[in-house]
Amino acid sequence: MKLTIERAALLRALGHVQSAVERRNTIPILSNVLLSAERDRLTFSATDLDMEIIDEAMAQVDQPGQITAPAHTLYEIVRKLPEGADVSLSFTGEDPRLAVQAGRSRFNLPVLPAGDFPVMSAEGFSGRMGVDVTDLIRLIDKTRFAISAEETRYYLNGLYLHTIVVDGSPRLRAVATDGSRLALADMPAPEGAAGAPGVIVPRKTVGEARRLLEDAGEQVELQVSPQKIRFEFDGAALTSKVIDGNFPDYARVIPKDNNRIVMVDAKLFAQAVDRVATISAEKSRSVRMAIEAGKVVLTVRNMEAGQAVEELEIDYDGEPFELSFNARYLLDITDQISGEQAELRFGGPNDPALVLDPADADVQYILMPLRV
Amino acid sequence: MKLTIERAALLRALGHVQSAVERRNTIPILSNVLLSAERDRLTFSATDLDMEIIDEAMAQVDQPGQITAPAHTLYEIVRKLPEGADVSLSFTGEDPRLAVQAGRSRFNLPVLPAGDFPVMSAEGFSGRMGVDVTDLIRLIDKTRFAISAEETRYYLNGLYLHTIVVDGSPRLRAVATDGSRLALADMPAPEGAAGAPGVIVPRKTVGEARRLLEDAGEQVELQVSPQKIRFEFDGAALTSKVIDGNFPDYARVIPKDNNRIVMVDAKLFAQAVDRVATISAEKSRSVRMAIEAGKVVLTVRNMEAGQAVEELEIDYDGEPFELSFNARYLLDITDQISGEQAELRFGGPNDPALVLDPADADVQYILMPLRV
Repeated sequence: MKLTIERAALLRALGHVQSAVERRNTIPILSNVLLSAERDRLTFSATDLDMEIIDEAMAQVDQPGQITAPAHTLYEIVRKLPEGADVSLSFTGEDPRLAVQAGRSRFNLPVLPAGDFPVMSAEGFSGRMGVDVTDLIRLIDKTRFAISAEETRYYLNGLYLHTIVVDGSPRLRAVATDGSRLALADMPAPEGAAGAPGVIVPRKTVGEARRLLEDAGEQVELQVSPQKIRFEFDGAALTSKVIDGNFPDYARVIPKDNNRIVMVDAKLFAQAVDRVATISAEKSRSVRMAIEAGKVVLTVRNMEAGQAVEELEIDYDGEPFELSFNARYLLDITDQISGEQAELRFGGPNDPALVLDPADADVQYILMPLRV
Repeated sequence: MKLTIERAALLRALGHVQSAVERRNTIPILSNVLLSAERDRLTFSATDLDMEIIDEAMAQVDQPGQITAPAHTLYEIVRKLPEGADVSLSFTGEDPRLAVQAGRSRFNLPVLPAGDFPVMSAEGFSGRMGVDVTDLIRLIDKTRFAISAEETRYYLNGLYLHTIVVDGSPRLRAVATDGSRLALADMPAPEGAAGAPGVIVPRKTVGEARRLLEDAGEQVELQVSPQKIRFEFDGAALTSKVIDGNFPDYARVIPKDNNRIVMVDAKLFAQAVDRVATISAEKSRSVRMAIEAGKVVLTVRNMEAGQAVEELEIDYDGEPFELSFNARYLLDITDQISGEQAELRFGGPNDPALVLDPADADVQYILMPLRV
């Protein structure tokens, strides 16, 4: 293998794939990136066996070939090379190492055979759809905060991406929940979505996909199978196993009859919750909401740290009632509200609360109150 | 105590003093800030028993008094209050807590008696000098990186600030060393510096002083005694114990006869060292320098990570020679060079190297080579 490539193109592609590589690996080749040079381009592939990222860049290939080299080291070297440099990569067999050269800088990196590099199959997908990049980013951003980090309920450690028919219209929907709160966002289902199976996309994959989408063009090709998901755009591809489990029937927990409807200024409300939470105990982070006609009083009482009380005007004219929430969870949700107002719909004091965004009809948040 | 104060003034003063407060304290009152209201101002004091920071702010005092309250919590609350808010603080005895109120936000914080708060004496200083703030910042910034973190040689865990006569002129000088490298910066001694004892200022104090100096005016009042140092400006004061020990006679290690003089482009040299260091082993970080007429070759060889070679043009026409340095230490020093060129003065392969900044005659750096 022998080629020359612009530093910027090399850095961009290595930046895309290298974050799939774990810092510590018991299998040495998983620390490496697979470099494949042919015709006018260099292809990059990195994997942790659960997820694989592939990218490509234009290069002047003098001698095609394949080799693997340490991903993080190669990325660091290229990052530190001067802007505008031309980088030559060569593995000729004379030296059993990959030579990296730019100007008067020369590096020789240890390699492992390309034939040993694990490759994930891009076959076997049943659903295939083109999704607008900004739409997919929205689905992820509105919901990923609610993904559970608790390992025992492994089927909650991801984002449930599936199609569903709402009022006769097919929708592509993302749902995440950790049992205490739930976030749901959807969009009109793109063409091809109809036959696609629902998949639970692992947290790490969601993060990597989100990062790659930053650099994507307008459209991303999404493919799913019961075992895998694949994001493809502009020559880059992220393929990942999905979580093998059943996502709970979330529709059952969406409250239908919460008829105590409270409108609050989303920003002022979030700021007030944030302030009283300063006093809350690390673990429960409990904040009490006392709602009456025209106002809500937020209270935190903590034996050690003292007491905090905030009052806020609200649009509500029903009976007074009280309930408690985890302040952190409440903030995570209010942070998602895109409009000026948040719509809070309450049932009884132990019923889940529904939070809606009047500026975005396609999101729903559910929050369980704390028992006090 | 009862007063009203602008949020911005309160936040600034709390921000200054609160970082003296350790996150965890076995003595509860050390988590608190002492608030003292009298006449037209509120005074703040915080300490970790080795260091004390005091600041003050204008306030409308309705009832003078003193109390202590949790420093970090109070700071967090004030930080989260809306800009432009007026904050009222009151401790009246009716409620055994400090009431903090702004708009419709009310907080009640636990207190401890002001009489129990440890106060550091501002007496007993023998030297007193006014120093230009930018000059003092320069002394700190050029040297603090070389302060030792190794606890066994506790007398190296600080910045040695002292006066010395160089070529008949009195100088105020800062020196730091960890045994492998040494950084020295000085300036014309300000008036009053002559009688001042040399002091070893602890690392934490150096950091806090540096932070406070960002907000200082033009002049800082410096007072020293064999036991303490005090920085005073604009109503704020940092008083700290100094390290009880003897700083080594560093003058002996400054090489006088290093006559192999090499001029390098400081930025290109630093970038090349940084690149080859990518390959160096975590511990030794050894980089080999082979110097010959007109060029230096930097080499790192690492059994696991491969090899790196960089060539750089230099201004040198003597005999070739080689030595090795810790790449991190070399970078710390080249980062300090303010001019375009760095002047490297070498003796034998095991002699300390002297690094000078042709753009700043008042700094000197010494670096021990690695034995190979």
